Amino acid sequence: MIKVGIIGGTGYTGVELMRLLSRHPGARLEVITSRSEAGRPVAELFSSLRGVVDLAFVEPSLDAYRDCDLVFFATPNTTAMTQAEALLAAGIRVIDLAADFRLKDVPTWEQWYGATHACPALLKDAVYGLPELNRDAIRGARLVANPGCYPTAVILAVLPLLRAGLIEPRSIIADCKSGSSGAGRKASFDTAFCETTESVKAYGVAGHRHLPEIREILKSVNADADLVFTPHLMPMIRGIHATVYANAAGDASGVQAVFEEFYRDEPFVDVMPPGSHPETRSVRGANLCRLAVHYLAEADKYVVLSVEDNLVKGAAGQAIQNMNLMFGLDETAGLEAPGMMP
Amino acid sequence: MIKVGIIGGTGYTGVELMRLLSRHPGARLEVITSRSEAGRPVAELFSSLRGVVDLAFVEPSLDAYRDCDLVFFATPNTTAMTQAEALLAAGIRVIDLAADFRLKDVPTWEQWYGATHACPALLKDAVYGLPELNRDAIRGARLVANPGCYPTAVILAVLPLLRAGLIEPRSIIADCKSGSSGAGRKASFDTAFCETTESVKAYGVAGHRHLPEIREILKSVNADADLVFTPHLMPMIRGIHATVYANAAGDASGVQAVFEEFYRDEPFVDVMPPGSHPETRSVRGANLCRLAVHYLAEADKYVVLSVEDNLVKGAAGQAIQNMNLMFGLDETAGLEAPGMMP
Amino acid sequence: MIKVGIIGGTGYTGVELMRLLSRHPGARLEVITSRSEAGRPVAELFSSLRGVVDLAFVEPSLDAYRDCDLVFFATPNTTAMTQAEALLAAGIRVIDLAADFRLKDVPTWEQWYGATHACPALLKDAVYGLPELNRDAIRGARLVANPGCYPTAVILAVLPLLRAGLIEPRSIIADCKSGSSGAGRKASFDTAFCETTESVKAYGVAGHRHLPEIREILKSVNADADLVFTPHLMPMIRGIHATVYANAAGDASGVQAVFEEFYRDEPFVDVMPPGSHPETRSVRGANLCRLAVHYLAEADKYVVLSVEDNLVKGAAGQAIQNMNLMFGLDETAGLEAPGMMP
Amino acid sequence: MIKVGIIGGTGYTGVELMRLLSRHPGARLEVITSRSEAGRPVAELFSSLRGVVDLAFVEPSLDAYRDCDLVFFATPNTTAMTQAEALLAAGIRVIDLAADFRLKDVPTWEQWYGATHACPALLKDAVYGLPELNRDAIRGARLVANPGCYPTAVILAVLPLLRAGLIEPRSIIADCKSGSSGAGRKASFDTAFCETTESVKAYGVAGHRHLPEIREILKSVNADADLVFTPHLMPMIRGIHATVYANAAGDASGVQAVFEEFYRDEPFVDVMPPGSHPETRSVRGANLCRLAVHYLAEADKYVVLSVEDNLVKGAAGQAIQNMNLMFGLDETAGLEAPGMMP
Repeated sequence: MIKVGIIGGTGYTGVELMRLLSRHPGARLEVITSRSEAGRPVAELFSSLRGVVDLAFVEPSLDAYRDCDLVFFATPNTTAMTQAEALLAAGIRVIDLAADFRLKDVPTWEQWYGATHACPALLKDAVYGLPELNRDAIRGARLVANPGCYPTAVILAVLPLLRAGLIEPRSIIADCKSGSSGAGRKASFDTAFCETTESVKAYGVAGHRHLPEIREILKSVNADADLVFTPHLMPMIRGIHATVYANAAGDASGVQAVFEEFYRDEPFVDVMPPGSHPETRSVRGANLCRLAVHYLAEADKYVVLSVEDNLVKGAAGQAIQNMNLMFGLDETAGLEAPGMMP
Repeated sequence: MIKVGIIGGTGYTGVELMRLLSRHPGARLEVITSRSEAGRPVAELFSSLRGVVDLAFVEPSLDAYRDCDLVFFATPNTTAMTQAEALLAAGIRVIDLAADFRLKDVPTWEQWYGATHACPALLKDAVYGLPELNRDAIRGARLVANPGCYPTAVILAVLPLLRAGLIEPRSIIADCKSGSSGAGRKASFDTAFCETTESVKAYGVAGHRHLPEIREILKSVNADADLVFTPHLMPMIRGIHATVYANAAGDASGVQAVFEEFYRDEPFVDVMPPGSHPETRSVRGANLCRLAVHYLAEADKYVVLSVEDNLVKGAAGQAIQNMNLMFGLDETAGLEAPGMMP
Repeated sequence: MIKVGIIGGTGYTGVELMRLLSRHPGARLEVITSRSEAGRPVAELFSSLRGVVDLAFVEPSLDAYRDCDLVFFATPNTTAMTQAEALLAAGIRVIDLAADFRLKDVPTWEQWYGATHACPALLKDAVYGLPELNRDAIRGARLVANPGCYPTAVILAVLPLLRAGLIEPRSIIADCKSGSSGAGRKASFDTAFCETTESVKAYGVAGHRHLPEIREILKSVNADADLVFTPHLMPMIRGIHATVYANAAGDASGVQAVFEEFYRDEPFVDVMPPGSHPETRSVRGANLCRLAVHYLAEADKYVVLSVEDNLVKGAAGQAIQNMNLMFGLDETAGLEAPGMMP
Repeated sequence: MIKVGIIGGTGYTGVELMRLLSRHPGARLEVITSRSEAGRPVAELFSSLRGVVDLAFVEPSLDAYRDCDLVFFATPNTTAMTQAEALLAAGIRVIDLAADFRLKDVPTWEQWYGATHACPALLKDAVYGLPELNRDAIRGARLVANPGCYPTAVILAVLPLLRAGLIEPRSIIADCKSGSSGAGRKASFDTAFCETTESVKAYGVAGHRHLPEIREILKSVNADADLVFTPHLMPMIRGIHATVYANAAGDASGVQAVFEEFYRDEPFVDVMPPGSHPETRSVRGANLCRLAVHYLAEADKYVVLSVEDNLVKGAAGQAIQNMNLMFGLDETAGLEAPGMMP
């Protein structure tokens, strides 16, 4: 039984990690920390966990995690980079659900995150935790950078096309729609119910932090790749829908087979039949990315539709998938629940 | 491994039964029938079940269920009563999620459901499947009438008060709020998104079929009991919130202890601390009724707040809880998942 | 043309006042103040008002309102009471949309609002701005206390019954459901989209500030009147649905006629036909309270269903209705728009 | 006072026409027809119109409209084309809110609408009712084809770029998000609340009827223009958000000025400041298209964000704007109300 800790467990990725870990056959939550809520029972903050999680939040400290085999950082950006080194030195493996270790290029990271990176030396060891891309490296990793929610949906949509050379690599446009939980659990005007429901808006058109993340990964596959990325806020809790456009290159007749072959053995990517339109609700609560690829002959473009639950395959579920790989467990352990529909 | 069938699996209780059964360690779905969708793969209708349920709907017929130990009727009212006898005669146990066997009094049933009951003789054998009230009888039952969604929330709120003699039994008012899934999966103007969202309304104020059901059960506990019941439609998918008012009788100082004691050993009823306000979302997807009791000294009245997921503790989850009891399984098997929040 | 000012216009009642005033034929918004947003164009904060309101917020000061005939306080509680006296002394009439002048009983006010009242002497002059109750007094008032949102819906539901002596005055139960905008425009965890949508909960069961307000008004009609009041939070922006229960007293056969007669000449109260179930969406954006009265013969109780838009008839619309009365305008001026449905 | 009729008034464009006409100073609704609801008071079907519209639906017949100056077809596609000729012959002008007269090319229309056009000769007389494009022609028109909801949002976003030669005309991608009211008022599984809320999906990726409509209009401006169009369904009632991408051609530095100049005198198009992200809720209920243009230097592409209320500027409001033009009224008459926010 793996012993795990969660650092900063008062946000949505924290409570989702707890929901998923509560049913995991091979891992047990030992400790959860929070500066702001130290001393408070977890189930008092998250009533859904009454009778499920009996822990109280404790003050973060290296000592608190001493018995853990693994800790998840469910903290805001720039927290993990200040603590990861000490944890690793103590023999504790780390999965960061924030962005501190997602980019290899330090200047790019510092530009987009507006801070000096506290442990740039660790970046080369960190593995980008997208199992469909880096499964073997994740197995051996001490430090995993869990991918962003948008990047997961977009990269999984683009990878088969890019690898197969079926698209012009610089023509990618990712028009993405996310539920409100992607903004995190916070007290702000912008995320209030009355400001969010019954409305749609784009944000960050001029530049969003997930753009350099997607770009770096795509370029690692094809150095010419680049994209336009536009996130939109949807009036719903969970779910990302990425609509990815790219100019076709070459013969498009086999594209469905390319996708099916590419993801044939993947437990958490579902390629739908030709002509399908996946719905975000079909993966609500599930660790799954569901894809459909369309070829528009007149325009000679592809449109790939990609849906996931941003808190599961886009965050906590993928983190547990990475944990399973790192510790030699069945990759699907604790992650088999289907989506909740309706 | 129990072999189960679902009759009429194209509605919300049907898909919820499949979601829950897919993770059940001791039961396996063998067959699912639908007149309208016969031949169609289940996962085509419910994309959340792609890769989870590999069956196709088949035409309903006694032969289709021959290998089953149990069938669930997830059909509209007045279907189960025409088929239950044959199934029972074939040695197949039955749980009806509709209302055909919920009332013992035939004239009352016929008045409220506007039909002649097809097998009144079975009513005396049918057990009302509320484990907190009838656990032992359910264990031995061949035919279980799964309670209505509103009745479950209301009865669990009232039972401790009624049993302890803490209320005037005729003073009960149950003001209930339900999500839209309680209306079932159907094509109608009334349940359309644009007609339902961003609005609240009462319905059936003059009389709703769940009124005689609650009344009959409460009267079986205290013959003087009666109530006013007002259902309201909420702009959300899942969840019932019952707000139950009753005039206090006698000393109210121990009411919290009465509730805690009454439900101490119940795995699926959670009594919250004094002063609590349960949220329906805290039980989303979970087989749980969460209660809080308030005593208003000035008015000398109780207000009991009771929440459940109408599709789980109010329907499919409770049906599986009943199945577990009927077949000697762990009562909580397949039902341990906590609520999904947010 | 009346010149009006709004004090504290960054909340939902402020923006709603501006929306309604923008179409008013007899009033013109001259000034709007906000400490936090001084200097910022109104239309920058509320993009719906681009091209409609050309003002910028200014620092609050007596001087800012000097040219106004009337100011609306759209501020939090305890603000108006510190400034009203000076405004009145300057000959400016005042409508307070907060609670500072709603109660006549100072100790009760101080107990529920947790503050010492700054100008108790003004309370006797303040008129409770419910036109259906106090039309003549409002016409002559210098200072109007605009009613709370819940009180408006509940009092209008109860008045005909109470006046006609058709109910036991102490048996009233008001189970109320409100949209999220009732909580105001603020940055808090509780009002976040992900915490509010797809869920229902009661709050303030032990006591809510609108209870003493409703109680004082009902007692002014019948000294024996009292009630239980339970507010619930609904996952929608606008709308209050009050479900009011009371024990009948005497003959109930004429109750529909009593309601129709009582509100025959009221422009903003709509009594629906017998058996109706009003929907909150039918009054979205409209200055209207829509009522339906049901008599339950078996229980010998009334159930009155009352809906309004909490920001219109429950706040800004009613304030403008009061302004119209105070300044001798057509009572319906600027308030004739029907509800927006869907 | 213009006398108007509505044919087929039981859908969302019908009720929205009535809402807007009820406040119009120069037009009066004389008659409204419906085959299915003939004889029923309008306000019984749409309770928001109680006290506002006193008409009952009548059977459609030429005689019913005899006194009208204008009729609006708020019917499904393929209805207006069978009746328009007779109405025009009787001297009644016509605005069709459906698609029967939107395309000039008959074979294209017949291919996309799966029917033989009943009066192709009228197509050359029909004016596409987008005032920003065809104001003068609309003034003189007897027959106006009111634009589709998506086409309005997309065309207004693209026109300034296309006219100014700032984009590669074949590189346009319109990723569009619509609220559920765009699907109309109907009883179907797909539009049910539980199937729509808390989810996002694309639809019609392979081809949607608004594609040829947008294409024909864009080609009328620049014969080389073409586009990819992907509609998505959002969990909200009203609102369309078009996100339009195009490759830049030439100098982009003046694009903001190009937009501001292009729409300087337009009462119902609002160009936001640089860097803006319009929200659909900012135009809820308003006859307005709100635009923001972004230039992405790295990618050398434009992203134009365009929002409207699909039932107002995308349907009923634009129809009234056309009526105002056709009858020489102030173009903004009856259409001045700002958006309802929140």
